[in-house]
Amino acid sequence: MKALLTWWEGCCVSSPFLRFVDVNLRGIGQVMFMDNPLSGLLFFVAIGWGSYEAGMPQVAIGGLVALVAATLAAQWLRVEPADLGAGLYGYNAYLAGLALGTFLIPSPLFWVYLALAGAVSVPATLATANVFKTWGVAALTAPFVLTAWLFLLATYVFTAIDGGGLPMNPEITPLDPAAAELLAFGDFVQGVLKSITQVFLKASIIAALLLLAGLAVNSLAAAAFALAGAIVAVVTAHALGAESDLITGGLMGFSPVLTAVALGAVFYKPGLRVAMYALVATVFTVVVQGAMNVALAPFGLPTLTGPFVLASWLFLLPRRHFE
Amino acid sequence: MKALLTWWEGCCVSSPFLRFVDVNLRGIGQVMFMDNPLSGLLFFVAIGWGSYEAGMPQVAIGGLVALVAATLAAQWLRVEPADLGAGLYGYNAYLAGLALGTFLIPSPLFWVYLALAGAVSVPATLATANVFKTWGVAALTAPFVLTAWLFLLATYVFTAIDGGGLPMNPEITPLDPAAAELLAFGDFVQGVLKSITQVFLKASIIAALLLLAGLAVNSLAAAAFALAGAIVAVVTAHALGAESDLITGGLMGFSPVLTAVALGAVFYKPGLRVAMYALVATVFTVVVQGAMNVALAPFGLPTLTGPFVLASWLFLLPRRHFE
Amino acid sequence: MKALLTWWEGCCVSSPFLRFVDVNLRGIGQVMFMDNPLSGLLFFVAIGWGSYEAGMPQVAIGGLVALVAATLAAQWLRVEPADLGAGLYGYNAYLAGLALGTFLIPSPLFWVYLALAGAVSVPATLATANVFKTWGVAALTAPFVLTAWLFLLATYVFTAIDGGGLPMNPEITPLDPAAAELLAFGDFVQGVLKSITQVFLKASIIAALLLLAGLAVNSLAAAAFALAGAIVAVVTAHALGAESDLITGGLMGFSPVLTAVALGAVFYKPGLRVAMYALVATVFTVVVQGAMNVALAPFGLPTLTGPFVLASWLFLLPRRHFE
Repeated sequence: MKALLTWWEGCCVSSPFLRFVDVNLRGIGQVMFMDNPLSGLLFFVAIGWGSYEAGMPQVAIGGLVALVAATLAAQWLRVEPADLGAGLYGYNAYLAGLALGTFLIPSPLFWVYLALAGAVSVPATLATANVFKTWGVAALTAPFVLTAWLFLLATYVFTAIDGGGLPMNPEITPLDPAAAELLAFGDFVQGVLKSITQVFLKASIIAALLLLAGLAVNSLAAAAFALAGAIVAVVTAHALGAESDLITGGLMGFSPVLTAVALGAVFYKPGLRVAMYALVATVFTVVVQGAMNVALAPFGLPTLTGPFVLASWLFLLPRRHFE
Repeated sequence: MKALLTWWEGCCVSSPFLRFVDVNLRGIGQVMFMDNPLSGLLFFVAIGWGSYEAGMPQVAIGGLVALVAATLAAQWLRVEPADLGAGLYGYNAYLAGLALGTFLIPSPLFWVYLALAGAVSVPATLATANVFKTWGVAALTAPFVLTAWLFLLATYVFTAIDGGGLPMNPEITPLDPAAAELLAFGDFVQGVLKSITQVFLKASIIAALLLLAGLAVNSLAAAAFALAGAIVAVVTAHALGAESDLITGGLMGFSPVLTAVALGAVFYKPGLRVAMYALVATVFTVVVQGAMNVALAPFGLPTLTGPFVLASWLFLLPRRHFE
Repeated sequence: MKALLTWWEGCCVSSPFLRFVDVNLRGIGQVMFMDNPLSGLLFFVAIGWGSYEAGMPQVAIGGLVALVAATLAAQWLRVEPADLGAGLYGYNAYLAGLALGTFLIPSPLFWVYLALAGAVSVPATLATANVFKTWGVAALTAPFVLTAWLFLLATYVFTAIDGGGLPMNPEITPLDPAAAELLAFGDFVQGVLKSITQVFLKASIIAALLLLAGLAVNSLAAAAFALAGAIVAVVTAHALGAESDLITGGLMGFSPVLTAVALGAVFYKPGLRVAMYALVATVFTVVVQGAMNVALAPFGLPTLTGPFVLASWLFLLPRRHFE
């Protein structure tokens, strides 16, 4: 693996085009905190497959268009080369492209709108990072969540962009208990794997395996925490009586997966105390996911990774040192 | 009084158990900014009485469970011992426990959920304090408000936790003027006293007298500002034509009471200019209470002490020096 | 022009009353970033005319009352004299007064309520400025937006203040495409000019010309960016298929106008790269305006200049240097 990456790095040094490819692949990898072009490539293939399987090529293509728009915008804005090279200006745009591809209906203007969202994610990233570095905490996917919410919400008043895929919810009412059934084992496995792919807004078991591979090539700990986070999320959501279809579709678990990886394997040094802290944070993220599902219903908006951002900031801002 | 506290402090030095009790009592006292175990004890008795009177023992017990969960979590997280000893990691959890006990229906899982909320309030407190110390301002009850909102909101999608006590409001419509009547003197007195107990989510006149006693044993100024704040709030809410039943139940006045104490007697040195500033802030808090009642209606959520937090931050962040 | 201002400055030095007038005129000028009493005077005349034309004198008078209340409050709070003299404690109050005059129905208590809003805008300004100076960014009109939202929202539960002018919206539903027609040339010109006056909550062509004159006497660049921003906003909103009546009434363009002036002519040094950056930010502000129209519908609230504040902070916080 190392030899492969060294060879690739050598290719990139001599070719501006390959360097551009490298930066964009790392941007995809950073969706799950992996500063590694091979992780990015595996994630990219996973999402491509998930898009194809769902009959929605605009999702994978949308992610790519927004990503390239962001990388070009970041270059034009002369951001810090090291941060750009690590893919830190790509992941928010890639996710925004996936989200717009998922919830909006394609048209020529749709592609312009999506590229604009990708480009705008760069100032949003710079702004968020600038604010949160005051407390030594990363921007996480907040720039994606904010940008995508705005571009999705606005489609309700823009007739030239069709927001036909957005969830239009009625008034808040407590969930019908009949919607929460006992989970069968097959549903449990599906829920766990789709919790991982829903990080990229997809529900696909093959894509989940590719994503786990993409994590493992760079960090076994990250892969382990992703899987463990998904299991914890599915069990917690089930114990609390959440809607079975949501759990099996991975929609209660994708934010907890990110929380588990972020706290367990990325921002703190892995260890027993850190694992316990990450466990509580992961369970808490399930509660936040439930709360934000309710809070966003009146706006006809998906939560995106908002629950991950809120819960992880609350558990990262304390700056505990677990030695 | 001083001799009593000195004797108690002596007992605590030699007994880890009494020290634990002391920390928790101070945590209750800090709901109204009192770093004093006797204040905490009187507040605890007041809430116990109010809970018993209302036939809802789960409120007082819920507060205690969440408080102990938070103290244990804070010890595990190795927070600053001086802050822990002053009760600064307890008041948000105690309030969260009272709120969950008030709005949710008890069940075995309810108690786990409530203890989790108590524990999570500790990272929330650390995070908020870390952010706001940038501007020299305290976290106030923001960690409580945020944590409780999330845990309450999520119950709409969790069938295993019964949120039967939550306010389910229809669409926003202007208040029917018939709901705002002239206040009789008895209603006025009730409104004032219950504004003080509603800080702890209770409506009880005996509890109000115990709370005032708890304030007075530590700070006569705090007791005076609490009473004055309640009077200002009831008069202002009535003058603006708020719903009479809300005013008489103390629901327009509990946030203004906290604002009055915080600005008038805790964070600024008492004096004439400070009193005037606190007066404007208290009146403003009534407006914010009205605004947040409307803003939270679509979410089926109570405001909790959100209006106090927002208004007091706006009047504390200017860092005026009233010499 | 310079001679006139020098003569006026001479008058102010010797007369506390004229100095008070000067401070208030600059406060009005600062609504569009102009620290110039002549700009303020022209803006004041423009709004007076627009109010008179619309048969709503309470708007212009409301602006004045809130402005004077704020200036007195700022003096009482002993704010930095240089900031006070530059009008930085006036523009938020002036806008709050215009907003309350526009959406509420006058009564004796209304005027007290409006003066309180003006006074409260001063701590709100101090608080916001204190927070955002951490990142070298101005408070913009955030204190106005926050204060006015609270005072407007609360009227739904206060029967003594009549919020009869507030927009009561039904549930969120996508816009009927029939509401987006092709714009005729006359509608286009109206949309552009009214986008400028809607900064002050007015729709008047004569007022627009007076506002452009007020900008031009202090900064030709500001006048040019205001006009260009309005054109970009109208074209963008039309291309995205927004409701034609909103565009022609200037309601899709007033926040973009402010973004264009702020980024193009005030906070960055004018130049080609800055103009391109401001262009993207202006287009983005149209999207944010659309999004906030939807987001605020469930609360029955106007967006005010919220879209300008959010979009401009996102584009100012990156602190790019375009040399």
